[in-house]
Amino acid sequence: MFESAELGHTIDKERFDKEEPEVRHQLLEAQYELVKKADFPVVIILAGVDGAGKGETVNLLNEWMDPRHIQTNAFRPLGEEPSGRPPMWRFWRALPPKGRTALFIGSWYTQPLINRAYGKLKKAKLDQEIERILRFERMLTDEGTLLLKFWLHLSRDGQRKRFKELSKSKKTAWRVTDTDWKHLEMYKEFMAAGEHILRATSTADAPWLVVEGTDDRYRSLTVGRTILEALRRRLDHREKPHRPRAAPRVPPIDGVTVLDRLDLSRKVETKDEYDDELATLQGRLNQLSRHKKFENISVVAVFEGQDAAGKGGAIRRVTRALDARKYDVIPIAAPTDEEKARPYLWRFWRALPERGRMAIFDRSWYGRVLVERVEGFCAEPHWMRAYGEINDFERELADNRTVVVKFWLQISKDEQLRRFEERQETPFKQHKITDEDWRNRDKWDAYHSAISDMIDRTSSEHAPWTLVEANDKYYARLKVLRTLADAIDDAL
Amino acid sequence: MFESAELGHTIDKERFDKEEPEVRHQLLEAQYELVKKADFPVVIILAGVDGAGKGETVNLLNEWMDPRHIQTNAFRPLGEEPSGRPPMWRFWRALPPKGRTALFIGSWYTQPLINRAYGKLKKAKLDQEIERILRFERMLTDEGTLLLKFWLHLSRDGQRKRFKELSKSKKTAWRVTDTDWKHLEMYKEFMAAGEHILRATSTADAPWLVVEGTDDRYRSLTVGRTILEALRRRLDHREKPHRPRAAPRVPPIDGVTVLDRLDLSRKVETKDEYDDELATLQGRLNQLSRHKKFENISVVAVFEGQDAAGKGGAIRRVTRALDARKYDVIPIAAPTDEEKARPYLWRFWRALPERGRMAIFDRSWYGRVLVERVEGFCAEPHWMRAYGEINDFERELADNRTVVVKFWLQISKDEQLRRFEERQETPFKQHKITDEDWRNRDKWDAYHSAISDMIDRTSSEHAPWTLVEANDKYYARLKVLRTLADAIDDAL
Repeated sequence: MFESAELGHTIDKERFDKEEPEVRHQLLEAQYELVKKADFPVVIILAGVDGAGKGETVNLLNEWMDPRHIQTNAFRPLGEEPSGRPPMWRFWRALPPKGRTALFIGSWYTQPLINRAYGKLKKAKLDQEIERILRFERMLTDEGTLLLKFWLHLSRDGQRKRFKELSKSKKTAWRVTDTDWKHLEMYKEFMAAGEHILRATSTADAPWLVVEGTDDRYRSLTVGRTILEALRRRLDHREKPHRPRAAPRVPPIDGVTVLDRLDLSRKVETKDEYDDELATLQGRLNQLSRHKKFENISVVAVFEGQDAAGKGGAIRRVTRALDARKYDVIPIAAPTDEEKARPYLWRFWRALPERGRMAIFDRSWYGRVLVERVEGFCAEPHWMRAYGEINDFERELADNRTVVVKFWLQISKDEQLRRFEERQETPFKQHKITDEDWRNRDKWDAYHSAISDMIDRTSSEHAPWTLVEANDKYYARLKVLRTLADAIDDAL
Repeated sequence: MFESAELGHTIDKERFDKEEPEVRHQLLEAQYELVKKADFPVVIILAGVDGAGKGETVNLLNEWMDPRHIQTNAFRPLGEEPSGRPPMWRFWRALPPKGRTALFIGSWYTQPLINRAYGKLKKAKLDQEIERILRFERMLTDEGTLLLKFWLHLSRDGQRKRFKELSKSKKTAWRVTDTDWKHLEMYKEFMAAGEHILRATSTADAPWLVVEGTDDRYRSLTVGRTILEALRRRLDHREKPHRPRAAPRVPPIDGVTVLDRLDLSRKVETKDEYDDELATLQGRLNQLSRHKKFENISVVAVFEGQDAAGKGGAIRRVTRALDARKYDVIPIAAPTDEEKARPYLWRFWRALPERGRMAIFDRSWYGRVLVERVEGFCAEPHWMRAYGEINDFERELADNRTVVVKFWLQISKDEQLRRFEERQETPFKQHKITDEDWRNRDKWDAYHSAISDMIDRTSSEHAPWTLVEANDKYYARLKVLRTLADAIDDAL
């Protein structure tokens, strides 16, 4: 994989001086067009051998292009996120909005590469990591990101020579650390790991570009030209962003879904029984939240359900059991413009709880496959891919000691009508019923199949759906509290 | 100050049960109205004696109102912000958008109060802190925030009794820490500090409300009713948000401003001279940025100037001297909707650099007193108060070992015309000139007085303006680099 990057590629000064101004000028033009159109974001990863010019390339791109529209991220290798969020959290946070360019020195490749070279990551686990990266990058490109990945390469001798040069001058000696020398000793291990990872993550939409780093001029022009060509293709619409295709869906041919099998007549017989059980469950949940080990986990609770299904009431029964300093309720309405300019899961990543805290989502990322699907806000290929992206997201949470509990509160169409009418007749409830609620109700059947698909496709072992029979509010609230308490109990 | 909060106020259960549902219902109504109108944010501080019910009150408010529209912030006392940002950074970050309510347990009062009680804060320094708080809260209320400050009080005996009660039960014993007992010993010192701080910070727009915390029912109803009344007054427009008045301005009666005294004919004689000096200064800046002590400071560089004055070119000469991993360039355009919903300085607080980094602002918070003033985007009382708020902001930065360097790049009206025409005639520069630039040019005189006022009112010892004669680009760039390097040098 690295053979042709050890050929000693060079460009002489004359040619460089002739070509550089043109590349530079066109890059700047392309960048301004990108900023102006703000159609897609650009993510550029600079990985590779130490000393091969990652830092120099980042500086050069900031020099050639307008640094005002570039954000440079230098991430050091990191085991666990200090905030307790999943490892990918910091990369999500650094994703640029449409029109902007983000450079990454240190990326989601850094940790797997080092761990593999040090022998800390077995083959099977490495392959899992690769699979995870592939899915993440697939999400990025599906969302329209122009993703460019450069591997700057040096041969072993080239690297040794480079380190020696740098060490000679007082001005640059600080750049070669003991770790660098150690990694030079491990050159073979690093290359084996790199080759494996690069091969496995070179996809049609985001291939790796291996560039020899020995000659500054060759490296600079190659990287510059590559970025320019990629930008122009997208800006001139010569290359469409990757369009995911939707796999065909076949609804259950007998028309029966999991929702139909719910026994909505379930209820708590008396108010006394409810009050007793409510107090018991809230007490239990409160104790669990004060358990010592609760500080080692996070909790994400998702509430979805039809309009008037009782999400708000159920959430309040949960929060009343908890110290207000331990939870956040996150109501999901229309995204802000900062959120709209990034992949749709970005807004949920930014709201993830720290360790020892619970985030309660009142509606959630499932809007993508519910309202956005039914209302046509989002084309089929895009909501179709959301199932997989959501599963990946929840898997990252679960892998990071986050308890994910998801509730679907289901009521019957008749019960919804009764509640709508009651809201309209009760003065202080009128604000809870809008024309939109009635319009949504007209689409009951479309929602019905969207809900069924959602439950089928996103009920996973690590983040199962709990269907809540919610015609009886008491029954629903108790089931929610019991399920949540059980899930936390299991995790402690 | 605390006398009437030691009278043993109580409310009997009967009265509470009668009044509570009404208060609660009305609070919820008011909250939904607040959310719907989204006219102003609500900030509620809960301070006071340990054991007087701060946590209980926060939980109660989350129970009475809809927790989905409340954010609860529990801040522990903190010396230095771990991220290296100024101490107020975390409070700025937690400011709610319009329509939402933020509860603060632990606030900008916590650290001064504790330090004063421990005798670590001398009277003069305490008064400085108080002055700072007054200015911050003044800014909040001027920006429309409804700010409510509760001090929950217990007498010394009442606190002792409360701690003993809590310690008795296994369920609550963990809530009384050794620090709590120690602070009980220091009751007198805490009350003296509290009394002084509360008196000094009880303003017409944000008075302290002292509430006796012994009786849960009394405390709950008092806090609830107070919040309700304050919300209703604002929602019903019985009380207008504080309208700052603008002090009269008298422009210099001879019409001469600092800008007129600039010698715009200054220039660098030859390109060679420029190239030499540029290389020297960039080298110097680079070395400074790699100085060991650079890791202990932050740098904020502000670039303002007329259209076509050469801000972008000057910024690029600075960034080329630096490693791209050490700086961020922050271009200031129209605020996003998340930014619009908060005080106007919020977007700049969120962009502040960590230790060892430089943030370069291409346009800045001075837009408030330049474009917003001239274009009338903002009423006179509001841009008039901005001078003081900006000075406070920059003082916080300077006090936090942040070097603040501000450049005004000044060109003559003729030179601007020459550059505009050049831009229009040069194909690859056309994107840099818009109709708006021409419109701004028509307002040259209005801008001229806005700029003069800005420089007069915001050139402070800790954050002086550097006026840059920019008719000659070479001269301007060298002056910028030299000034920046000198300022950093001084700080190291």
